[in-house]
Amino acid sequence: MSTQSSRSPSGYSTWRLIAEELRREIADGAWPAGAKLPSENDLAARFEVHRNTVRQAVAALVADGLVTSKRGSGTFVAEHTLLVHRIGARTRLTDSLRGSTASARLLDSAIEPDPPADIAERLRLDGRPALRLEQMRLVDGQPISLGTQWWVAEQVPGLPEIFARLGTVTGSLKEIGIADYLRAATTVGGRYATADEAELLRLAPGSVVLVVRSLDTLTDGTPLQFGIARFAAARVELDIEHARIG
Amino acid sequence: MSTQSSRSPSGYSTWRLIAEELRREIADGAWPAGAKLPSENDLAARFEVHRNTVRQAVAALVADGLVTSKRGSGTFVAEHTLLVHRIGARTRLTDSLRGSTASARLLDSAIEPDPPADIAERLRLDGRPALRLEQMRLVDGQPISLGTQWWVAEQVPGLPEIFARLGTVTGSLKEIGIADYLRAATTVGGRYATADEAELLRLAPGSVVLVVRSLDTLTDGTPLQFGIARFAAARVELDIEHARIG
Repeated sequence: MSTQSSRSPSGYSTWRLIAEELRREIADGAWPAGAKLPSENDLAARFEVHRNTVRQAVAALVADGLVTSKRGSGTFVAEHTLLVHRIGARTRLTDSLRGSTASARLLDSAIEPDPPADIAERLRLDGRPALRLEQMRLVDGQPISLGTQWWVAEQVPGLPEIFARLGTVTGSLKEIGIADYLRAATTVGGRYATADEAELLRLAPGSVVLVVRSLDTLTDGTPLQFGIARFAAARVELDIEHARIG
Repeated sequence: MSTQSSRSPSGYSTWRLIAEELRREIADGAWPAGAKLPSENDLAARFEVHRNTVRQAVAALVADGLVTSKRGSGTFVAEHTLLVHRIGARTRLTDSLRGSTASARLLDSAIEPDPPADIAERLRLDGRPALRLEQMRLVDGQPISLGTQWWVAEQVPGLPEIFARLGTVTGSLKEIGIADYLRAATTVGGRYATADEAELLRLAPGSVVLVVRSLDTLTDGTPLQFGIARFAAARVELDIEHARIG
């Protein structure tokens, strides 16, 4: 990566700001899928920067899969740039990414006798140990999210081993005897990825992640799992399921 | 702001990465509200950086209101760092931020005879003009979001003037004769703020925004408004309302 690009006074590189402006314009429909981006010279004139800076910005969009460069003919907005992850009362990743090959990889698991206080409260642990699972989800081989899941350990005996074998939470719970569960609460925030998250998700340092905190319960309302998932915002958009009223 | 901080190879400043790591740890409950952060010396040792770099990171958290520094006694995690914006079938900003003084400011409005194709399709305009409103929302005087709203113009005659006078969408629609409307679809994404957005929201360049795209309809399902709201992620968390099943 070139180190010649100019920087804004705050230390934020100009190429990154240009990349984000172009990203926003693509997201907002200024150039629909298949459209040709303006030339490097035109973009350089518009942003009043050197052509190398524009080239670096466009390279970042190419790396994200947002645009594709065709040698000799220009840069084009890619089709279907974002995966859609559905959030609803019966959210299941395998349902929400139909047509792609979704998989999950177990990164770590541990019994935690003394989990953070807010987790213990949400799960109503009352001193019982929690099971912590760390997983990465991939779609078509590309990492899309990292998840830290806190389970009421005694409700899911053997979950890490079953999950490692089956690769799906819903399937693992069925095998344990939990046929159904519900999403009770979800919040969504956004922040920069930490260095570790960026490395695991194969993102540039400081990329944006969507942070989804969720509580799943058994059908009678008993807390089952509290999760903190980090989605790569460059790859995933969340789709909120609304209650049907009236 | 000091320009002495070291930078990672990608041009991403180290102090910013440290600030984000601390932000994540606070969000994840490593230090609950009221807890004391480790000293600058301890943090400098942990991150293997100069104390000035840590100081810059902590100053950024102070600027965000995430922590407060008490001279001579240290740095403490602040209470209630994030506003909660509720997203549901009957989402209303004034409902979702109870206890604070929410207001909206009209930045711009225009009749658009030829809106972007995806907007025209979502609103089923069939050649009818759209009304575009640009507004900023503030809570206790602090900007929290920017919104671009596309309305079916003929359904909301005089909306810009009424909205400028009343400062609430729901109130303005009541005056026009639209007593109720429903949220039909919502997606949430994340990205860096553009330079313009950062300036209006009084954020550091390249801060994270949550992008909420939404379709509101009349109670009979007729499209009414398509909105693209950008929330300052450092200030707002979205709370998803789930359908009650069973």
